[in-house]
Amino acid sequence: MQTVSFKSILSQYKVIFFDAYGVLKNYKGLIPGIEQTLAWLDAQKKAYYIITNDASRSPQLLSQSYHNAGLKMITPERIVSSGMLAKEFLELKVKDGIVAYLGTKESAYYIERPGVEAVSLCKLSTADMDKVNALVLLDDEGFDWFDGLNKAVNLLRRKTIPAIVANPDGAYPVSKQDVGIAIGGISWMIEKITGRKFIRFGKPDSQIFMLAWDIVQGHFPGLSKRDVLMVGDTLHTDILGGNKFGLDTALVLTGNILTEDAETRIISSGIAPTHICESAVVDFH
Amino acid sequence: MQTVSFKSILSQYKVIFFDAYGVLKNYKGLIPGIEQTLAWLDAQKKAYYIITNDASRSPQLLSQSYHNAGLKMITPERIVSSGMLAKEFLELKVKDGIVAYLGTKESAYYIERPGVEAVSLCKLSTADMDKVNALVLLDDEGFDWFDGLNKAVNLLRRKTIPAIVANPDGAYPVSKQDVGIAIGGISWMIEKITGRKFIRFGKPDSQIFMLAWDIVQGHFPGLSKRDVLMVGDTLHTDILGGNKFGLDTALVLTGNILTEDAETRIISSGIAPTHICESAVVDFH
Amino acid sequence: MQTVSFKSILSQYKVIFFDAYGVLKNYKGLIPGIEQTLAWLDAQKKAYYIITNDASRSPQLLSQSYHNAGLKMITPERIVSSGMLAKEFLELKVKDGIVAYLGTKESAYYIERPGVEAVSLCKLSTADMDKVNALVLLDDEGFDWFDGLNKAVNLLRRKTIPAIVANPDGAYPVSKQDVGIAIGGISWMIEKITGRKFIRFGKPDSQIFMLAWDIVQGHFPGLSKRDVLMVGDTLHTDILGGNKFGLDTALVLTGNILTEDAETRIISSGIAPTHICESAVVDFH
Amino acid sequence: MQTVSFKSILSQYKVIFFDAYGVLKNYKGLIPGIEQTLAWLDAQKKAYYIITNDASRSPQLLSQSYHNAGLKMITPERIVSSGMLAKEFLELKVKDGIVAYLGTKESAYYIERPGVEAVSLCKLSTADMDKVNALVLLDDEGFDWFDGLNKAVNLLRRKTIPAIVANPDGAYPVSKQDVGIAIGGISWMIEKITGRKFIRFGKPDSQIFMLAWDIVQGHFPGLSKRDVLMVGDTLHTDILGGNKFGLDTALVLTGNILTEDAETRIISSGIAPTHICESAVVDFH
Repeated sequence: MQTVSFKSILSQYKVIFFDAYGVLKNYKGLIPGIEQTLAWLDAQKKAYYIITNDASRSPQLLSQSYHNAGLKMITPERIVSSGMLAKEFLELKVKDGIVAYLGTKESAYYIERPGVEAVSLCKLSTADMDKVNALVLLDDEGFDWFDGLNKAVNLLRRKTIPAIVANPDGAYPVSKQDVGIAIGGISWMIEKITGRKFIRFGKPDSQIFMLAWDIVQGHFPGLSKRDVLMVGDTLHTDILGGNKFGLDTALVLTGNILTEDAETRIISSGIAPTHICESAVVDFH
Repeated sequence: MQTVSFKSILSQYKVIFFDAYGVLKNYKGLIPGIEQTLAWLDAQKKAYYIITNDASRSPQLLSQSYHNAGLKMITPERIVSSGMLAKEFLELKVKDGIVAYLGTKESAYYIERPGVEAVSLCKLSTADMDKVNALVLLDDEGFDWFDGLNKAVNLLRRKTIPAIVANPDGAYPVSKQDVGIAIGGISWMIEKITGRKFIRFGKPDSQIFMLAWDIVQGHFPGLSKRDVLMVGDTLHTDILGGNKFGLDTALVLTGNILTEDAETRIISSGIAPTHICESAVVDFH
Repeated sequence: MQTVSFKSILSQYKVIFFDAYGVLKNYKGLIPGIEQTLAWLDAQKKAYYIITNDASRSPQLLSQSYHNAGLKMITPERIVSSGMLAKEFLELKVKDGIVAYLGTKESAYYIERPGVEAVSLCKLSTADMDKVNALVLLDDEGFDWFDGLNKAVNLLRRKTIPAIVANPDGAYPVSKQDVGIAIGGISWMIEKITGRKFIRFGKPDSQIFMLAWDIVQGHFPGLSKRDVLMVGDTLHTDILGGNKFGLDTALVLTGNILTEDAETRIISSGIAPTHICESAVVDFH
Repeated sequence: MQTVSFKSILSQYKVIFFDAYGVLKNYKGLIPGIEQTLAWLDAQKKAYYIITNDASRSPQLLSQSYHNAGLKMITPERIVSSGMLAKEFLELKVKDGIVAYLGTKESAYYIERPGVEAVSLCKLSTADMDKVNALVLLDDEGFDWFDGLNKAVNLLRRKTIPAIVANPDGAYPVSKQDVGIAIGGISWMIEKITGRKFIRFGKPDSQIFMLAWDIVQGHFPGLSKRDVLMVGDTLHTDILGGNKFGLDTALVLTGNILTEDAETRIISSGIAPTHICESAVVDFH
């Protein structure tokens, strides 16, 4: 399988969409050289955005974590998270009452607004169950799994309310070898047990690309989808979703897929990126 | 279960998105009163569009079939079909060569353009297989199933190319009692046998709503999603998709769902429309 | 929907297979009249067995729990549990080393034997991971879910070992309204995340019926499958499995399925019992 | 990945179960050397049986086809086909009326008996629909797919009758590169469209192994499952099914799995055979 240098393909595009985990950083920290790459893109006047299936924290807090890691250029405005779609959905479709959630306290950012109360499902009293108007799965941390997952199943059995997952991933890497079960994986189980259909926000679903596209078009009127490159490490989310939205895509090998497996994975899934690059790092040597 | 009259909810919305089959017409022909309803909407200056998982014919031919049935107001501009998304995808992602398809000759409209050849999969010669750059499932008619389905499986086993379905429905009604297997149902089988992932265009996927939304916004700058109502007869496509996109939704009982089953279906799926109406017909008595 | 009295159908059968939960007992305790029914069956020389997807405890402890509840006639010999199939599998296919499990301490009964060590997955040291030769999911209690489920996923990612679930149920009733997630439901999630295929023991799979059948044939040489009735409250396990094995089946309405839902459930699933009875209780009035 | 010679493992077993396609023969004809191997097994007094997911013809006709190909030792008594399980099921569960089927005329052998009429679904008159008491999918040939598949969907929508598939395979090889869609693959689509649950007979389900085991035990009283080896070319049917039933298993590389892919396939599915052999041929050099 032949890879091309990331730099060599950039001249074709005006805007870059980056996946976060496995592209900018991984379990070891920042991908070496990524800071210089982003700085160079800024110098070249290439616009870039982070398109992430992360609903654990607000764009502000996500941005802060990049700042802490050394990437000062990742401002909240550059972050498009799946949580933002859950937020828009709730604003349009849930007018009042309680929105119950599974996730960290920070993830409740995507729910809270005047007139609507965000309540962690594990803390929901039986008396308050009547007031629940939606269930949102935001993150796999911040609650006891036995209690939370059983309560989610029974809430959906009792009430016909929208059920939302703001991160459709089944798992995410936590070390070189191991993964953690993501809230999207948990939603599959709840769906199969209850027969209820979750609404999923995040790659590969088009709605997150649409949101990013709307933001970009505000800055670059007349932009064509041909001018945008989606860069990611995962075939079933970044590449499938980018392709479907009509974007060119670049698979990088710094995350989920090892160099030696890339070809097999592409052939067996039928999901082919436009380009394959070792990493999203521009080599200045 | 309580239904409301269609007329009573219309004052809340500026734009109506109608599903076609089961809403405007069914196996017996036009829903009685629908012509007067559409004329009345025109008189009221309510905009309306047809959002349909139909890729069997071009918007022009679809419009013509409505004209023939008596609905002169359904112009091609009012039709948003899933085939249009397949067309946009192919224009962005397939630059040349052959696009093989399953469907009628008329459905090839969504493929044909200068530089790209549409070839019915059953007529594809072995010699030409090398030139195929995408497979598109458009319609369940126009080809021999044994030959076409086996060829589709083997094409995807041999070549890593995009596989697209422009109608995600599993079945469609053909009489009071019976259904026909739709091309979307066939795609499930091909996907499971080959392990390849199809790209699906059409409700409930957001991309068709996005396309309709872009068209509407061109005509009504500043429109909010709150001003749009999606009307459909199917929970898993019209209502789920409309809800997810953030629209209010109205389930009508002139198609897939019988009045006596509506409540059970809503509860067991967890997919709840904003309104339930007997039909999309305005009663002038 | 028409039900028949349980007593009226019994003359056709020599042997009765009872599901346990929802048939003999439910969340409120024993089904009223079940003790007299079993005593009457004994007096009539009808043989009966309990066929249960329960791997939480040994047949001895399961029998003891029936004794404690007042059913002295349910001896260990009358219990055929899905755990017994896991036990036979492990004896045949795992020769030594560690078998890691999720479940209570009592459920480890189905693993322990000379030469093989049963270790709760949450207590497995990294150093011992090399010695693990199988993973068995026995029960949803007895371990921390966050820790246990994540460890199960990563164990299967690292090692190509048999993965077994000794209870294929997705959920089980815990009160009039609520259910608990069963270990079988958890296995669906792990399977989808890892891509690994679990071996499932328990109804509706034939192997548990085969084991019961072998036991019965030992006592009644020349018995025909026509002489055996499977009685259960769940269509997808008891009735589907009994039907498939060639037995007549009786659905009772004291468990999973409410009287008013029975007909809809049978029609929508296509799983039809031979008989439908209000309960498995013989009325002596 | 290390393979062992087939001969070297045979001393451990008294009885061999062979899968047919991919083990004894493939698209090119008999596997070279298989005739001598079976003759040698006869001389060694090793018993062997053919365990096949083939319901296209009776054991007599299947045996005849082996005779024609040169394997005179494969008598009907040595053949255990998934069709035989469908036959037993129908005898136990369908007392009269019509059994509708999809398949060749020869496949109807598994249905026909006094009092029951086998009718090809494409030839079923509307008037006779009332008399249909079961639907059986036997083979992918012998009927028009468009007509047959649509009729199968609508029959199951109208009638709550047992639906059976006597070959659970999704596809089968027809040439070095290509496969054919099998009737099991078709059943997945019908199941998903109708929501009905098919009863599946054939590997990996235990019931076919149980039938073979009953036959073998009749000839070898006191035989242990440890004395039996299942030989197959497919992980998800032969090896998974054999393992689950408690048998040792040997994967051969003359069929579905190429030598270079075996290790990847085993690791990614988690289905591990006891042995891996290049072929089921004994080398006499």
